[in-house]
Amino acid sequence: MAVSWEESVTSSINTIYLLFSAYLVFVMQLGFAMLCAGSVRAKNAMNILLTNVVDAVVGSISYYLFGFAFAFGTGPNSNPFIGTTFFALKDVPDGKYDYGFFLYQWAFAIAVAGITSGSIAERTQFSAYLVFSFFLSGFVYPIVAHWVWSSTGWLSCAGNGNLFLGSGAIDFAGSGVVHLVGGIAGLWGSIIEGPRVGRFDAFGKPVVMRGHNATLVVLGTFLLWFGWFGFNPGSFVEILVPYPDSVDQGNWTAIGRTAVTTTLAGSMSGITTLFGRRLLIGHWDALDVCNGVLGGFVAITSGCAVVEPWAAIICGLVAAWVLIGLNILSAKLRFDDPLEAAQLHGGCGAWGLIFTGLFAKEEFIIQAYDSGKSGVSRSYGLLLGGGWGLVGAQVVELVAIVGWVTVTMGPLFYVLHKLRLLRISIDEEVAGLDISSHGGYAYHHQVEETSHAPQRYLDYIRMDN
Amino acid sequence: MAVSWEESVTSSINTIYLLFSAYLVFVMQLGFAMLCAGSVRAKNAMNILLTNVVDAVVGSISYYLFGFAFAFGTGPNSNPFIGTTFFALKDVPDGKYDYGFFLYQWAFAIAVAGITSGSIAERTQFSAYLVFSFFLSGFVYPIVAHWVWSSTGWLSCAGNGNLFLGSGAIDFAGSGVVHLVGGIAGLWGSIIEGPRVGRFDAFGKPVVMRGHNATLVVLGTFLLWFGWFGFNPGSFVEILVPYPDSVDQGNWTAIGRTAVTTTLAGSMSGITTLFGRRLLIGHWDALDVCNGVLGGFVAITSGCAVVEPWAAIICGLVAAWVLIGLNILSAKLRFDDPLEAAQLHGGCGAWGLIFTGLFAKEEFIIQAYDSGKSGVSRSYGLLLGGGWGLVGAQVVELVAIVGWVTVTMGPLFYVLHKLRLLRISIDEEVAGLDISSHGGYAYHHQVEETSHAPQRYLDYIRMDN
Amino acid sequence: MAVSWEESVTSSINTIYLLFSAYLVFVMQLGFAMLCAGSVRAKNAMNILLTNVVDAVVGSISYYLFGFAFAFGTGPNSNPFIGTTFFALKDVPDGKYDYGFFLYQWAFAIAVAGITSGSIAERTQFSAYLVFSFFLSGFVYPIVAHWVWSSTGWLSCAGNGNLFLGSGAIDFAGSGVVHLVGGIAGLWGSIIEGPRVGRFDAFGKPVVMRGHNATLVVLGTFLLWFGWFGFNPGSFVEILVPYPDSVDQGNWTAIGRTAVTTTLAGSMSGITTLFGRRLLIGHWDALDVCNGVLGGFVAITSGCAVVEPWAAIICGLVAAWVLIGLNILSAKLRFDDPLEAAQLHGGCGAWGLIFTGLFAKEEFIIQAYDSGKSGVSRSYGLLLGGGWGLVGAQVVELVAIVGWVTVTMGPLFYVLHKLRLLRISIDEEVAGLDISSHGGYAYHHQVEETSHAPQRYLDYIRMDN
Repeated sequence: MAVSWEESVTSSINTIYLLFSAYLVFVMQLGFAMLCAGSVRAKNAMNILLTNVVDAVVGSISYYLFGFAFAFGTGPNSNPFIGTTFFALKDVPDGKYDYGFFLYQWAFAIAVAGITSGSIAERTQFSAYLVFSFFLSGFVYPIVAHWVWSSTGWLSCAGNGNLFLGSGAIDFAGSGVVHLVGGIAGLWGSIIEGPRVGRFDAFGKPVVMRGHNATLVVLGTFLLWFGWFGFNPGSFVEILVPYPDSVDQGNWTAIGRTAVTTTLAGSMSGITTLFGRRLLIGHWDALDVCNGVLGGFVAITSGCAVVEPWAAIICGLVAAWVLIGLNILSAKLRFDDPLEAAQLHGGCGAWGLIFTGLFAKEEFIIQAYDSGKSGVSRSYGLLLGGGWGLVGAQVVELVAIVGWVTVTMGPLFYVLHKLRLLRISIDEEVAGLDISSHGGYAYHHQVEETSHAPQRYLDYIRMDN
Repeated sequence: MAVSWEESVTSSINTIYLLFSAYLVFVMQLGFAMLCAGSVRAKNAMNILLTNVVDAVVGSISYYLFGFAFAFGTGPNSNPFIGTTFFALKDVPDGKYDYGFFLYQWAFAIAVAGITSGSIAERTQFSAYLVFSFFLSGFVYPIVAHWVWSSTGWLSCAGNGNLFLGSGAIDFAGSGVVHLVGGIAGLWGSIIEGPRVGRFDAFGKPVVMRGHNATLVVLGTFLLWFGWFGFNPGSFVEILVPYPDSVDQGNWTAIGRTAVTTTLAGSMSGITTLFGRRLLIGHWDALDVCNGVLGGFVAITSGCAVVEPWAAIICGLVAAWVLIGLNILSAKLRFDDPLEAAQLHGGCGAWGLIFTGLFAKEEFIIQAYDSGKSGVSRSYGLLLGGGWGLVGAQVVELVAIVGWVTVTMGPLFYVLHKLRLLRISIDEEVAGLDISSHGGYAYHHQVEETSHAPQRYLDYIRMDN
Repeated sequence: MAVSWEESVTSSINTIYLLFSAYLVFVMQLGFAMLCAGSVRAKNAMNILLTNVVDAVVGSISYYLFGFAFAFGTGPNSNPFIGTTFFALKDVPDGKYDYGFFLYQWAFAIAVAGITSGSIAERTQFSAYLVFSFFLSGFVYPIVAHWVWSSTGWLSCAGNGNLFLGSGAIDFAGSGVVHLVGGIAGLWGSIIEGPRVGRFDAFGKPVVMRGHNATLVVLGTFLLWFGWFGFNPGSFVEILVPYPDSVDQGNWTAIGRTAVTTTLAGSMSGITTLFGRRLLIGHWDALDVCNGVLGGFVAITSGCAVVEPWAAIICGLVAAWVLIGLNILSAKLRFDDPLEAAQLHGGCGAWGLIFTGLFAKEEFIIQAYDSGKSGVSRSYGLLLGGGWGLVGAQVVELVAIVGWVTVTMGPLFYVLHKLRLLRISIDEEVAGLDISSHGGYAYHHQVEETSHAPQRYLDYIRMDN
């Protein structure tokens, strides 16, 4: 029996939508690489570029072998905590999951380690990075994804039947599952490593360590914005889903709305940061605005599909102040995160989970999780009159993620630290990771060259960008 | 009553097409940012990067609140000059406009200010930029879009009934609506601000002020090319539109053809510039070629959907000489536009409007504006025998846009100028905007660092790229 | 008679899929530009950026005028060696080929010259480059494409009837047609030009000539990865093709699988290179990993659609060692290819052809070339028990391409060489191509400027990045 015309059309349309969304999410890895490279000093640029490439290539193999299985494995032995089938894509496609779905989830998995790479930048041994990246994207992250996004996960709001707190947690594209996980991992890494040499002076006052290239930061930010159009609207996975109670709406409507809420939240957070930081520090800072925009995106990622555009603006407004506040607090506590990744992905990610609990609209939840079916009722946003069920589940997700990442990544970083495998030596740090571990600087400048004096090159090799 | 299968498929396909086109158009904002950054001196890179980010974030909120309403608002109070509904997306989706359409139009709106940012680069106060950007993308541009692209606009060629001059103006993706608007705004800004310090010597001779990074210029150019595939073919908005008189053609055919005409016009303009400038200045100049390619794209943007591929080649050939000629003229007139934006977007945009009046093919106009219906007749290109109706409407659009932007942006720039809010001081200009307004340079170079001598960083902070 | 609903839907879906894939392939041109720019010395950056822009603009016109005709022209005079219709897109669309297909193939054509530009970088006269680029992308490459990809080509495995060796060669997205062609062209260009000044010392030992900007290399690599999602999965051209023997599979399944095999091969090659080079040279080299990833992509490009994911991992594993080995051999033979393009695209491309002959799965070949029809049988991978037919055809393709490119590009380079048009003078090479041929360096650094001393600019113009 062949595939019917209707099924062929549906599969084709949904696959195009999912694959191109996956490609956009993949661009975020490039965005992180450029953002991170621009935000560190030139002497460590090669190192952080390599970590971002490594996240992608190591993540491909580990997610193929077992990460995807841990996250989305189903079958008789499946349980609410961890998946148990689909190792090495065995039995895929199975009617429910096709290769496109794997690719989309793979692009998410590699992003998590990319987030954390920023927190531990400029001082981490490369071999330790390999261990951490493999463990985080292959084990710690997929399990959280299973809890929230697999229909058998204990926090899922997509499963039918007994939803947690009668609601399940709504983390549509992963403010918690992706960003909070990456941020908390970075928090522990950064605390255990301690601040970079020279980051705080003898009196404990922070010394500004500017990144070496603002153009790369803006390039990275725009690429992340571009990629977020795959991350958030793409999380619908299927676009050809009509809503039975509507005469002209379906997932295509909700997908467009999700792109709009995402844009508005990031933009509002960026504007707020622009003026807020202007008031606080006296100049218009492009890098602050970039981080502000990203903070808005991180926050709306949880609720993007289930809130009105006006609520997204509130989301972004608050996200900016969460980030500004956490950055001030970090400086006070002598916490050093070169990319502000713990503050941005952790802090704004946490706010995003709460925000969804406050502003999620019932109609949109039913669209996103019940294909717009009639006669369904759902817990929804507290401030819209939806009661405490949803916001309770959101808080539980927040606490569960912080706890899980802490008990897994904390000991990993601590053991590496105790074995002296985590941080590079002070001499290496002063010289820069690129020259000590990667064979040379990222930038070369040669004023002149002749065939007769190759040795003279060395005199001209300088660290430039 | 639920959505029918046919409607679901149609909406899904068209939404995928429109959203991914919107994402590509958004990439143009990154393209402008990189092109502008590379074309200015390193000391102003941070400033122009920030203006491009600000165009996006401020444009999101203003276009959401009222820009979209001015451009596409319909309803009983609607009139040929300005739209009056859909403020803050009220009543969207309404059956005709869905969120995807808003997102697509938003990406266009933010591009306009990006164009103008180049003309006034390296000498404009950032607070003046905020005012100008808000006014241009929130008010001046949307009204022109209403005239030409809203079915109720006075210049529209899509409305049924009384078309202007029996034809309406054809500005398919906006050589006039977008590029000419941005270019004329830049012309006035640049004239009122005057040339950069040192741009012309004591004898009035132009002094070359090279941008600081040609790689960024090429990066920006290719990203803009990529984005133009969303800009021009995407302007069909719907792809699933069969032509009743054809056995196998529909919008899908015209969309592919539009991508081809766009590519050919940009390429021909690039080649012409390569050899033309080689003859004029004696070397092969990569930056000239980049601007040449962009000039070809700007020119074909109006007629891309309604001309044959061979005509696109003529379009690009002429566009190159328009740009070369205007650049020579600018130098003679001591007009200083750091990005050549007035010449490129203004000059080639104007040529694009005329070109369409000369070469538009009736069959293709009917495809683009009447879904290929039988029995329709249209004014078409003068040189193809279509009479003076269309070329007349094109000239009127050109004149109307120049006039409208002049009477709105001219006074705005002039008032800011008189209030001494427009241009920075000579000292700030010589030092660079980045250090005077944005807290530091875009590039940092630190030869060495120690934890004991944070003060020494200052010795090593240099403006590098 | 109008287009039927089914045809309209099919054409719309397939056109969206093909056009957006074409846009991704186009991004590869940007990827090559950034990769090449970062891999050469700063003094030649402008030159190589320009060559990559020129590949695109010259390729557009030549491929429109005759390249596409040579490759895909059919009709009564069509023959197995060269196409003879569709010059200047005459008779397109013709029911089989629409504009979208032309655009997709155009993006492939311009990539070929981009590959070769790396091999002859830093020492080639720009006018010679123009000749070579025009000849390669307008003539040499399209003919190979005709052999393998046109249904009338002598190596085609898509035609019905008499397939070569009863099998035809399988080069799904062009490990041979694109990469081997570009790599062998580069091999001859690089041999005939000889190594760069100073590349080998008086004792014949290689002197490292590092590229000037590793960030650009990583940027280029990620952009190429992004583009490869258009290159490989996009080569299906149509997504709405159900398989008659399946209840839920069609091209959408095979397309997702192709994206997965591509990702796994590149990743495995990257990981292998990371650890392999660590063992060989003692540090973790980001640039090696980038080239390793690209080598994996080049190798899987031939078989991506017809192998299992586990086989793709083997493909990448071997590709890494092919590249490492050829690089060691090149240094021994004093062969200087600044981008390793001959080794990477030539070597891994050749391996890709063989790999497909070893690991292609019959079921997947029938999906890719017979729309999954029942009752078809095909030669398939030798190691899977498919006999010698396929691997024989693969070897013949390899030999034919090496021969054809050698007898066409070899003489071209040799004649240019003899006419002293190929290589720049030693003085120009030491000074750099940018200052000698392109009017200035790619990067400018101006510490200060005043309106009174324009002459002082010259003192500050330095080659920086």
